[in-house]
Amino acid sequence: MRLDVVTLFPEYLEPLHLSLVGKARARGQLGVHVHDLRQWAYDKHHTVDDTPYGGGPGMVMKTEPWGEALDEVIATGYEHGAAEPVLVVPTPSGRPFTQELAVALSARPWLIFTPARYEGIDRRVTEEYAARLPVCEVSIGDYVLAGGEAAVLVITEAVARLLPGVLGNAESHRDDSFAPGAMANLLEGPVYTKPPEWRGRGIPEVLLSGHHGRIARWRRDEALRRTAVHRPELIERCEATAFDKKDRETLSILGWAPGPDGRFWLRPPAVEE
Amino acid sequence: MRLDVVTLFPEYLEPLHLSLVGKARARGQLGVHVHDLRQWAYDKHHTVDDTPYGGGPGMVMKTEPWGEALDEVIATGYEHGAAEPVLVVPTPSGRPFTQELAVALSARPWLIFTPARYEGIDRRVTEEYAARLPVCEVSIGDYVLAGGEAAVLVITEAVARLLPGVLGNAESHRDDSFAPGAMANLLEGPVYTKPPEWRGRGIPEVLLSGHHGRIARWRRDEALRRTAVHRPELIERCEATAFDKKDRETLSILGWAPGPDGRFWLRPPAVEE
Repeated sequence: MRLDVVTLFPEYLEPLHLSLVGKARARGQLGVHVHDLRQWAYDKHHTVDDTPYGGGPGMVMKTEPWGEALDEVIATGYEHGAAEPVLVVPTPSGRPFTQELAVALSARPWLIFTPARYEGIDRRVTEEYAARLPVCEVSIGDYVLAGGEAAVLVITEAVARLLPGVLGNAESHRDDSFAPGAMANLLEGPVYTKPPEWRGRGIPEVLLSGHHGRIARWRRDEALRRTAVHRPELIERCEATAFDKKDRETLSILGWAPGPDGRFWLRPPAVEE
Repeated sequence: MRLDVVTLFPEYLEPLHLSLVGKARARGQLGVHVHDLRQWAYDKHHTVDDTPYGGGPGMVMKTEPWGEALDEVIATGYEHGAAEPVLVVPTPSGRPFTQELAVALSARPWLIFTPARYEGIDRRVTEEYAARLPVCEVSIGDYVLAGGEAAVLVITEAVARLLPGVLGNAESHRDDSFAPGAMANLLEGPVYTKPPEWRGRGIPEVLLSGHHGRIARWRRDEALRRTAVHRPELIERCEATAFDKKDRETLSILGWAPGPDGRFWLRPPAVEE
């Protein structure tokens, strides 16, 4: 996979040399190319922003440096044999970045990121490249950052850990929160390791039982419990078929009840924190 | 504001020296202290993880190094006169990090972050400190990272830009996506700057009209339009009183209709991408 990032803060992307992403780079599985946008701003001050049309606070990133930068980055990638890129545009106005989208992006050969600063990039840049390439305007969450660089680190890390062989133990994906399968839509419950007692705190006895079925059941109940507290909407989103008989018992104990059509479960008023 | 981060990858936090967060540090408004967790692992290999009780893939971070680290970090902060800290624990199982939570955290004097690796930290660590301090288990979004460090960068940046004087122009908060006020719950629409024509693409004429009312109306319509496409659930979440007569017209044109009780608006089936 090839990654290009065009940014005003190339140093912000230094963490891409570390940890899993760094190892994938070192193995040659991932080629990462970080470019300073100011290279493509040709006036004395390397200006990349100007005041917004229509007035208002803040500055808007100009079309020309982005256009020149993307043209050159795209041409260079193609020269090196890369297949069609996806332009990934981090913006609070984008569609939500989800694990599903991370999986989809991890199957692409080439991602180009355009993290913005200030009030964002002149709209015509996205329109121009959307006419030629798949463009994915994406928001990592409902909060406002100072720029898109932190979002690039997040997206890159979520995508890179899904590449074949990047995680040491392939099984480690299986119980991820938001992973497909039995735990789809459930948050992970608590985990424990040695010692069995620490500062007067023990561990749940079932985990020492060696009984795989009971342990799996306990983990699922804990996942249900945690999801009900922190993310009740995830449970409401589940199909009725997502819950087995034991799940329904656990949800009942937590105060949830099946809805009129049997498909949905209704949260108890008291569960919210 | 004081920030402490305990991590296996101190270098990952280098971006905290850059941009707005870096400037707030340089001005003395923010004290950032990054600690290597392995300092508090005393065996030859500085072991911080072990296999999970109950079996399964992956490794769990051990209680002892975290306990020693947090005791020392907390004691040191208090010695330097800091008021009560909040322990911020990034985990996909946490409550969602939102702009509202960023605002709440920006009012606190001291945040301690515990970004984890592997399958997470032994549950007893959170329980131990929750008995003494406010603990905030928080998820930056529905995707899985290789570790909590990228989440710390995201949370820190969202919080730091809200500190007084950190953004050059205080007004720049006002039109943020997710900001309180007129644009609450709406995504920002497109922005434009000079030149008026670029690669055959012009800008919306209203932005050149100099008519503030018409410009504000156009911006709000664009925000409604973008929100309806990318985040229909945000519109559904709005109170009826959030929409004025013109908003209702715009939503109608986009195919939305008021619900039976007049409080909610129902998305048209065709709007989803």
